[in-house]
Amino acid sequence: MKDHDSPFTYANTHIGLTLPDWALAALNDLPPNLPTLEERMAAVIEFARQNFLHDTGGPFAAGVFERDSGKLVVIGVNRVVPSNCSSAHAEVMALSLAQHLLRTYDLGGPSMPAHQLVVNWRPCAMCYGAVLWSGIRSLVIAGSGPELEQITGFDEGPIHPQWRQELQNRGIEFIENVLREEALAVYREFAAAGRLVYNARLGSEE
Amino acid sequence: MKDHDSPFTYANTHIGLTLPDWALAALNDLPPNLPTLEERMAAVIEFARQNFLHDTGGPFAAGVFERDSGKLVVIGVNRVVPSNCSSAHAEVMALSLAQHLLRTYDLGGPSMPAHQLVVNWRPCAMCYGAVLWSGIRSLVIAGSGPELEQITGFDEGPIHPQWRQELQNRGIEFIENVLREEALAVYREFAAAGRLVYNARLGSEE
Repeated sequence: MKDHDSPFTYANTHIGLTLPDWALAALNDLPPNLPTLEERMAAVIEFARQNFLHDTGGPFAAGVFERDSGKLVVIGVNRVVPSNCSSAHAEVMALSLAQHLLRTYDLGGPSMPAHQLVVNWRPCAMCYGAVLWSGIRSLVIAGSGPELEQITGFDEGPIHPQWRQELQNRGIEFIENVLREEALAVYREFAAAGRLVYNARLGSEE
Repeated sequence: MKDHDSPFTYANTHIGLTLPDWALAALNDLPPNLPTLEERMAAVIEFARQNFLHDTGGPFAAGVFERDSGKLVVIGVNRVVPSNCSSAHAEVMALSLAQHLLRTYDLGGPSMPAHQLVVNWRPCAMCYGAVLWSGIRSLVIAGSGPELEQITGFDEGPIHPQWRQELQNRGIEFIENVLREEALAVYREFAAAGRLVYNARLGSEE
């Protein structure tokens, strides 16, 4: 090994992403199946709310379910700040955890039941792409308007103008406006609490 | 805990992403600083090539450097298939590893030197968003045309039509066509080797 002021080791090049303790307990308290879209979204919205109340991440959650049976695979929450990882958005957490649990990088692989992702708002520019690559066959969101950015101050980034069509082009079912007002209520609660908005480049006002 | 056929534990809800052994050794063999863009891109292209030759992921790599000094922070490689994680693209690996090493979710935070991401082609739809949220101040790519998709068969997804302008809007410097032919040569070598193209939904022809 050459002289180097930051040599690379297994310990310092391992990315570890986990759910907070309360989320593990809450997952184990959920019923194994959530038959309706409203039940699935209500669980996701409550995880989003508990995440910022516990100060374990931003007000976002995403759940992976078997689309037809409603069997719960996993619900992930935003972990950007506690994990020091700007990619640890709720959708990336949920999709990655589901893939880890099911031991596949493709939730739409042969012999798999159709999987559905349920999110408490339209995915950001990054997570929109993550949805496309995940193998998810169905995307359900609480809403897609500018209200999220207006209420919370989060930047959702430049998503493709034909994003709905691009989902369809890849065979991904799309359903929106499930418990929209309930999702917005959590964003208003987050904003009123004055919690950190962790958009990139805190130093960009230099 | 309720009766549940897949209870959630720390062990099964931990996402762990690592570099392959050869990459750790190769990182430790690199000089601490790579002063020119061509040196940085050449290292990234070689990591991409070694990644598919070792069968440790797709032919993609991304490096994080201090922009002005060329100090190496880390180089990540695509780990989708070996990690069972469709989000483990090279850019997400490199940005997450850099944030882990520097203990921040914001590579553009106050008191940070400007960080640069060097990639062996234009980031896909997901990774484009990941770049925006990372705090990176400079993006350097080998090329951006349709050649990658044409040669390899990978789907890069619907990136925003004004993606260059959107980088500029967020204060991210952009440089392209660095070692373009060298990058394309690796994609041709990958295609000739007949390796797996892991686009989502292997089962979508059902």
